[in-house]
Amino acid sequence: MAAESGEKWVLSVTAQTPTNIAVIKYWGKRDEELILPINDSISVTLDPGHLCTTTSVAVSPAFTHDRIWLNGKEVSLSGGRFQNCLREIRSRATDYEDEKRGIMITKKDWEKLRVHIVSYNNFPTAAGLASSAAGLACLVFSLAKLMNVKEDHSQLSAIARQGSGSACRSLYGGFVKWIMGKEDNGSDSIAVQLADENHWDDLVIIIAVVSSKQKETSSTSGMRDTVETSELIKHRAKEVVPKRIKEMEAAIAKRDFPSFARLACADSNQFHAVCLDTLPPIFYMNDTSHRIISCVEKWNRHEGSPQVAYTFDAGPNAVLISKDRKTAALLLQRLLFQFPPQSDADLNSYVIGDKTILKDAGIEDLKDIEALAPPTENASVQRCRGDVSYFICTKPGRGPIVLADESQSLINPETGLPK
Amino acid sequence: MAAESGEKWVLSVTAQTPTNIAVIKYWGKRDEELILPINDSISVTLDPGHLCTTTSVAVSPAFTHDRIWLNGKEVSLSGGRFQNCLREIRSRATDYEDEKRGIMITKKDWEKLRVHIVSYNNFPTAAGLASSAAGLACLVFSLAKLMNVKEDHSQLSAIARQGSGSACRSLYGGFVKWIMGKEDNGSDSIAVQLADENHWDDLVIIIAVVSSKQKETSSTSGMRDTVETSELIKHRAKEVVPKRIKEMEAAIAKRDFPSFARLACADSNQFHAVCLDTLPPIFYMNDTSHRIISCVEKWNRHEGSPQVAYTFDAGPNAVLISKDRKTAALLLQRLLFQFPPQSDADLNSYVIGDKTILKDAGIEDLKDIEALAPPTENASVQRCRGDVSYFICTKPGRGPIVLADESQSLINPETGLPK
Repeated sequence: MAAESGEKWVLSVTAQTPTNIAVIKYWGKRDEELILPINDSISVTLDPGHLCTTTSVAVSPAFTHDRIWLNGKEVSLSGGRFQNCLREIRSRATDYEDEKRGIMITKKDWEKLRVHIVSYNNFPTAAGLASSAAGLACLVFSLAKLMNVKEDHSQLSAIARQGSGSACRSLYGGFVKWIMGKEDNGSDSIAVQLADENHWDDLVIIIAVVSSKQKETSSTSGMRDTVETSELIKHRAKEVVPKRIKEMEAAIAKRDFPSFARLACADSNQFHAVCLDTLPPIFYMNDTSHRIISCVEKWNRHEGSPQVAYTFDAGPNAVLISKDRKTAALLLQRLLFQFPPQSDADLNSYVIGDKTILKDAGIEDLKDIEALAPPTENASVQRCRGDVSYFICTKPGRGPIVLADESQSLINPETGLPK
Repeated sequence: MAAESGEKWVLSVTAQTPTNIAVIKYWGKRDEELILPINDSISVTLDPGHLCTTTSVAVSPAFTHDRIWLNGKEVSLSGGRFQNCLREIRSRATDYEDEKRGIMITKKDWEKLRVHIVSYNNFPTAAGLASSAAGLACLVFSLAKLMNVKEDHSQLSAIARQGSGSACRSLYGGFVKWIMGKEDNGSDSIAVQLADENHWDDLVIIIAVVSSKQKETSSTSGMRDTVETSELIKHRAKEVVPKRIKEMEAAIAKRDFPSFARLACADSNQFHAVCLDTLPPIFYMNDTSHRIISCVEKWNRHEGSPQVAYTFDAGPNAVLISKDRKTAALLLQRLLFQFPPQSDADLNSYVIGDKTILKDAGIEDLKDIEALAPPTENASVQRCRGDVSYFICTKPGRGPIVLADESQSLINPETGLPK
């Protein structure tokens, strides 16, 4: 085989994988090692045009050990979660042949060949936007493509799950359910697609990235503490979530926004409630998060039916799902009125992503934000300048793809190192 | 009788009643009218020297209708809760005779005689420090004394309960249990004393009155929303609280501070968790409340056993219960380090109540606060100047008393009006 021939070829694959936001939350494991959850969860995949991970993986007989670079920095691959994913993918590798380049890799060769992994997020890693979900999903997806793994996306999701639980939901676009499964070995704890990204394309998503002064509890240790100490989490997992999962599936199938919003908001709040019921209590939302919820709740009540759903993960950032573009523009006006940027800000970096929403909202420069009137339903609301770092306008999006264009690879095809 | 004689006598009673803080929380009614709770609760009565209501009630044949003045301002007595208390007390009035003054009032006369009520809190009403509990308890207690009601404190507690649920717990000093009861008419929903204020007199209480910018949800409407919409409240009331009540009673009986603290903190957090699980969600704690919890949790963990318990009612104020005076001084140092007053503050009004704790903490002026070192367990904590309005140092205290000294009456004995 080529791997033993002393040739210097580098074989690589580049893939792009979206992040996702749960609308019925995953919180709590029944198996820490295999990452098996205590309840099903449902997520919306976010448009990778605005939030995604791009990963290039390469193999070469010249590589001496497995290496990984995240966002430009080499980090250790020794973590159990990386190793689990690598091992599972390698064990499913199949024969690969590139006649033109004279490369032939057998299933057995893959065991010995070392890989290089280079990964970038197109959004700030530290912002608490599920970067590990997109990252681990992309690692598994790209390695599977490289190693000619034949398993389908659901089977790959069970591998990504072992890297980061919510990563399994990033193997599909649109609306995705992570089935908790029953087997001890986790084989049936997989993600399935409920509907693709075209099923409900009215939805518009605005993310408020909230400045946080407090150090946050990692979700891994947080959910372990909750399972061990909360009196309410078992009731949630056993009695509340199964009902909500069915209702949420029905709401998505019927594009029933009022039910979708009611369930998403209630489940986000209940997730944060069980965090608070943990010993010591976990606070992910802060005063700014609370103010964003109040803004949405008041507006929804004023309109008589939900215009916007909110959901918060393990951090203070708000993910706001509007029923349509028109509503999203009205929401953005409300958000920019209440959370204007600092006076020295650049509007172009304060609202990023799909800027047409900003245009629909009638905002062309900072003066337009200052000139906004308070919403009628909340006329006395105070402006909280600087409490939001920036906004991202986006929408539900597609699942992972391979980027065939060599120029998009993050790996130098000659050296096998990051470009 | 004298009431019909045209004489101008005024008969009055003045009483003082403490406030209380629940360590196993009351949240949720099974009967809105009678104020019957969905679970038992346990409270600590606070020293009336620092937090109490004083109420004078008077009766005179010259009074034409029932009137009430709260904190210097006449307010309407037409509210159902005032009326319930007045009616219940009047129905239990017994014959009264003052031979010296020639006053004779029969049970039947009390029905016709009108009362004047004058009430003051010795702490800010708006600060969210259970002023309604102390107020309604004092109203019921003073009226019962005036009208020669023979019922004991537990029976009076069932009347105070109809004015404000937690008021029933202010009829006793020390440690008090409000038994939820089973009867539909509420006759067995009463408060009983678990231990008096001398039973565990090591405890020292520091209250951090936290500046709140947000308007708070009233506890009456908040708990109604929780009962109607939270999926977790029923589990709390049925499964969690009954166990905690038993454990808390045992902890108080044995003066077992670690258990007391563990239960009080967990129950405060769970109460706020079910508030968050409400639709729309209720946030009583803010970022400052969260920081105070983190401060206490870090210290408790560092010491290896609880030094301080925290509990929060329907607002952002922290009630911190220290195991002894020495610990309270160390707590106050931590609090003043993290929450120093504004530079133009007066130390004398920034730390009120029992000032000997301040002396024990080695703080004599504002410079001593600025010179404080950060706690070893939390060396990198940021100072949040101005986030706490003031601190009150106090301790568990006694139940209601009659103030026999005429000079302490709030009512002019000639006119029957507020002094």
